Amino acid sequence: MLTPDRISLNTATVKMQWTLAECIEGCARHGLGGIAPWRDKLQEMGVEPAARAIRDAGLKVSGLCRGGWYTAEGALTPAVLEDNRRAVDEAAAIGAECLVMVVGGLPAGSKDIDGARAIVEEGLAATLEYARGVGVPVAIEPLHPAYAGDRACVNTTSQALDICDRLGDGIGVALDVYHIWWDPEIRRQIARAGKERLLAFHICDWLVPTQDILEDRGMMGDGVADIPALRAEVEAAGFTGLNEVEIFSAETWWKRDPDDVLKTIVARGESCC
Amino acid sequence: MLTPDRISLNTATVKMQWTLAECIEGCARHGLGGIAPWRDKLQEMGVEPAARAIRDAGLKVSGLCRGGWYTAEGALTPAVLEDNRRAVDEAAAIGAECLVMVVGGLPAGSKDIDGARAIVEEGLAATLEYARGVGVPVAIEPLHPAYAGDRACVNTTSQALDICDRLGDGIGVALDVYHIWWDPEIRRQIARAGKERLLAFHICDWLVPTQDILEDRGMMGDGVADIPALRAEVEAAGFTGLNEVEIFSAETWWKRDPDDVLKTIVARGESCC
Repeated sequence: MLTPDRISLNTATVKMQWTLAECIEGCARHGLGGIAPWRDKLQEMGVEPAARAIRDAGLKVSGLCRGGWYTAEGALTPAVLEDNRRAVDEAAAIGAECLVMVVGGLPAGSKDIDGARAIVEEGLAATLEYARGVGVPVAIEPLHPAYAGDRACVNTTSQALDICDRLGDGIGVALDVYHIWWDPEIRRQIARAGKERLLAFHICDWLVPTQDILEDRGMMGDGVADIPALRAEVEAAGFTGLNEVEIFSAETWWKRDPDDVLKTIVARGESCC
Repeated sequence: MLTPDRISLNTATVKMQWTLAECIEGCARHGLGGIAPWRDKLQEMGVEPAARAIRDAGLKVSGLCRGGWYTAEGALTPAVLEDNRRAVDEAAAIGAECLVMVVGGLPAGSKDIDGARAIVEEGLAATLEYARGVGVPVAIEPLHPAYAGDRACVNTTSQALDICDRLGDGIGVALDVYHIWWDPEIRRQIARAGKERLLAFHICDWLVPTQDILEDRGMMGDGVADIPALRAEVEAAGFTGLNEVEIFSAETWWKRDPDDVLKTIVARGESCC
């Protein structure tokens, strides 16, 4: 069981209902240990005011979502790299444990997934160099293979760790139950990652059936992922960070009263995680 | 480019429009080299009449869809194993190159994917023993990870080949572009499979965006999969079988005139495969 102080709220979970200021207050009110803002909400509030409010509320920051999207303009462009440097600075300003990278899918019109993966690795190398200087760990989030075309062409933990091995220190993985629960290699890869590369752990659930591949993620306990088993694996490998709840749910949780969503998260942390 | 004689029609592609008898006539009319029936259509027509009609039309049978579903009743039951033996017999009766196995997902109410995978391997071993006696190759179809919960808990080519290695001769893989196109390991795994384990190759496309994870597969050329590259890999590894077109498409191809569907398949074989 997870006590609330070991849970972090990813703001995407209540993105339709709350501003970042409201998320910060909500986390404090429900006794959560941390928060993980998305950049749009952070910029809306302002980075410095947000940093102060998060600090004043006594919350840790399990991550900043998100950098990456290196294939947004086809080849790697200065604008994309500059945006990633800004993301690193924002992560530093709010004291985030890591900058979470959703690396980008295929460039528009392309079928060249190897080429996309090469662009992504080049982009990650550039961001990493900058992030090392600032002292922000970079966390590659391998996304479910269903997103390989349009969101992220890094799709397994093994693939992400291969990139980390090639790039060296200061980079690791953000593992989200939704994206990894099916992977026959996951146990071996979590052990391979170890404490140094395990930078974030996201929880939610895989619903059966899944009505929409992007916006029908489940609350912990409502699906088929064995969350306690995966959590035990990352903790056995040395991960001591927060359990970040990130649920995209257009038809269910984005329509609920956000205080009810947080109450449910706390209850499910105790009963299902 | 693929000439029609190197294409096989999986009957699922026009399952809403045509009976098996109509599919057989349609394949002959459009000059396709083969067919791959689903068992419901085969049983509806009758196995012997179907076998005769397929032979008379000069069509090869690239596979019979499908055996497997070992987790249908939770633990492996005599009924499930008996149904798989019947599938082997049907595959033999129509001269199929292989029996395609969709192995089954998690048993109802279960979150134990390791347990499901153990049930599946035990079931495959039993079916394989019977199939060896009858002389029918058993082809595990690794399904996209999006189906791990509800359709098949074998989700990568690597995982399928590990099972093959443990079970020995007479078993291999059916690789479908839809399920494998994203896999960073796919090249290595196709080479590992080699001629002996490459029993079937299915083509279609991955649409961006995908509206429905089961029934929104694309016609070759309409999505982002690099079909010619994958075909080149399986052929370099020794595969000489037909290219089987299997498209589940509730909103597009299942609503079209089936002769138009087959015309499109022939045209796309020439232009996009």
